[in-house]
Amino acid sequence: MTRYVCRVAYDGTAFSGYQVQANGRTVQTAFEQSLKKLHKGVVVESKASGRTDAGVHAKGQMIQFDSELGIALENWPIALNAVLPPDVAVMAVATVPDDFHVRYDTTGKEYRYRILRGRQKDVFRRNYTYQPFPLITDVEAMRAAAGHLLGTHDFTSFCSPRTDVVDKVRTITEVEIVEEADELLLRYRGSGFLYQMVRILTGTLVEVGQGKRPPDSVKDILTAKDRDAAGPTAPGHGLYLWDVFYDTDLFKKGT
Amino acid sequence: MTRYVCRVAYDGTAFSGYQVQANGRTVQTAFEQSLKKLHKGVVVESKASGRTDAGVHAKGQMIQFDSELGIALENWPIALNAVLPPDVAVMAVATVPDDFHVRYDTTGKEYRYRILRGRQKDVFRRNYTYQPFPLITDVEAMRAAAGHLLGTHDFTSFCSPRTDVVDKVRTITEVEIVEEADELLLRYRGSGFLYQMVRILTGTLVEVGQGKRPPDSVKDILTAKDRDAAGPTAPGHGLYLWDVFYDTDLFKKGT
Repeated sequence: MTRYVCRVAYDGTAFSGYQVQANGRTVQTAFEQSLKKLHKGVVVESKASGRTDAGVHAKGQMIQFDSELGIALENWPIALNAVLPPDVAVMAVATVPDDFHVRYDTTGKEYRYRILRGRQKDVFRRNYTYQPFPLITDVEAMRAAAGHLLGTHDFTSFCSPRTDVVDKVRTITEVEIVEEADELLLRYRGSGFLYQMVRILTGTLVEVGQGKRPPDSVKDILTAKDRDAAGPTAPGHGLYLWDVFYDTDLFKKGT
Repeated sequence: MTRYVCRVAYDGTAFSGYQVQANGRTVQTAFEQSLKKLHKGVVVESKASGRTDAGVHAKGQMIQFDSELGIALENWPIALNAVLPPDVAVMAVATVPDDFHVRYDTTGKEYRYRILRGRQKDVFRRNYTYQPFPLITDVEAMRAAAGHLLGTHDFTSFCSPRTDVVDKVRTITEVEIVEEADELLLRYRGSGFLYQMVRILTGTLVEVGQGKRPPDSVKDILTAKDRDAAGPTAPGHGLYLWDVFYDTDLFKKGT
């Protein structure tokens, strides 16, 4: 038995989220069906670094599974991509120790959120960006607000109440806001993120950029420990699980 | 009665092409259904500058219709976009003379074709680019081949036999091949293009770039006046109807 971990990209548009559910197409189901095909009908379970919601995309989701197939490491991406649907792609595969855990061993994650500025309807980016109204006019205010998020805080106010997680203390190490042509790219790095945390952070920062709330209000939101104190949950289709970090570079080491 | 012309963008992914047909969702049907909604259930016919095939996108398709509605010119895009599906967008609307014809009055068109280079499966560009194998290695050869296409020729070899058009003489004024990051952008301008002409031109140029046929062979293909002499028809999902030209700048003039 060998344990493998895959870096996986997916277009979340046609998925009802990552995790297996009774109704709706999910990434996990698509991935495990592909594993089953390669294993001649034998069910192979998989684990991911975390779930993503409906419409949320991934550039670097991490998925692990165990296999006894004699496929050479460099051929695993080819084998998996041949059976995966066109909106899921394995970008890299590494072998890991048998006690590796793709979720518990993470040391951090990066999410990105793409905002489309302007009023014009955009047919090509409708599923890949969020286009808020009123328009964002004050990016500097957003950056000032983002500064208050850095460090270790109780992020209860920025977490959906629909979660079982008790400890809501997390560390955000970086929030970068980059203006790129007609888009605004929000890049979040941290030790970990609570349920819908990046989307609520983004919804709140957008309101700051729209002039609806001052940058300093973010401090009060954190103190409140109340979801209702923060802004709305930005839509899933602007969000990308960009990268997941571990103690070692899994794809450099190989084993 | 006022005649209007719209510049329309659409994501061709979920359409079976432009023109109304018995089965499958089409852009024309979506557009005319939206016109019908605005006209309180009255059917309004529309005409386009030309058809596009299944999967083909548009940045600048032109569609005309007549209406007696008292909507101010600047409010037409808002009214139409409110009732159009999310994958069709009216970018601009102008009024034109009553004898204007969106198809017969064209003086030229620009098509663009996006090619994705590299072997890596790309979930985000799968519906918006064509990723040929073997990889394109000789862009200069493609440019040399493209040079032979310029000017006025009988393009029978580059036209699908499934057409009723008899006169296959067209003028190509520009074929530009631009390397942009991991993509190759092919830009075609001409007096007009035959059925699937841009896709067959592209399929042939790709073969030149792959080293499968020499640049000079394009001259022989033109002379042959035989569809079988040219390369394959490149897939629709890499193609964009980019712009349609008329004697005057319709959207500058207004009327």
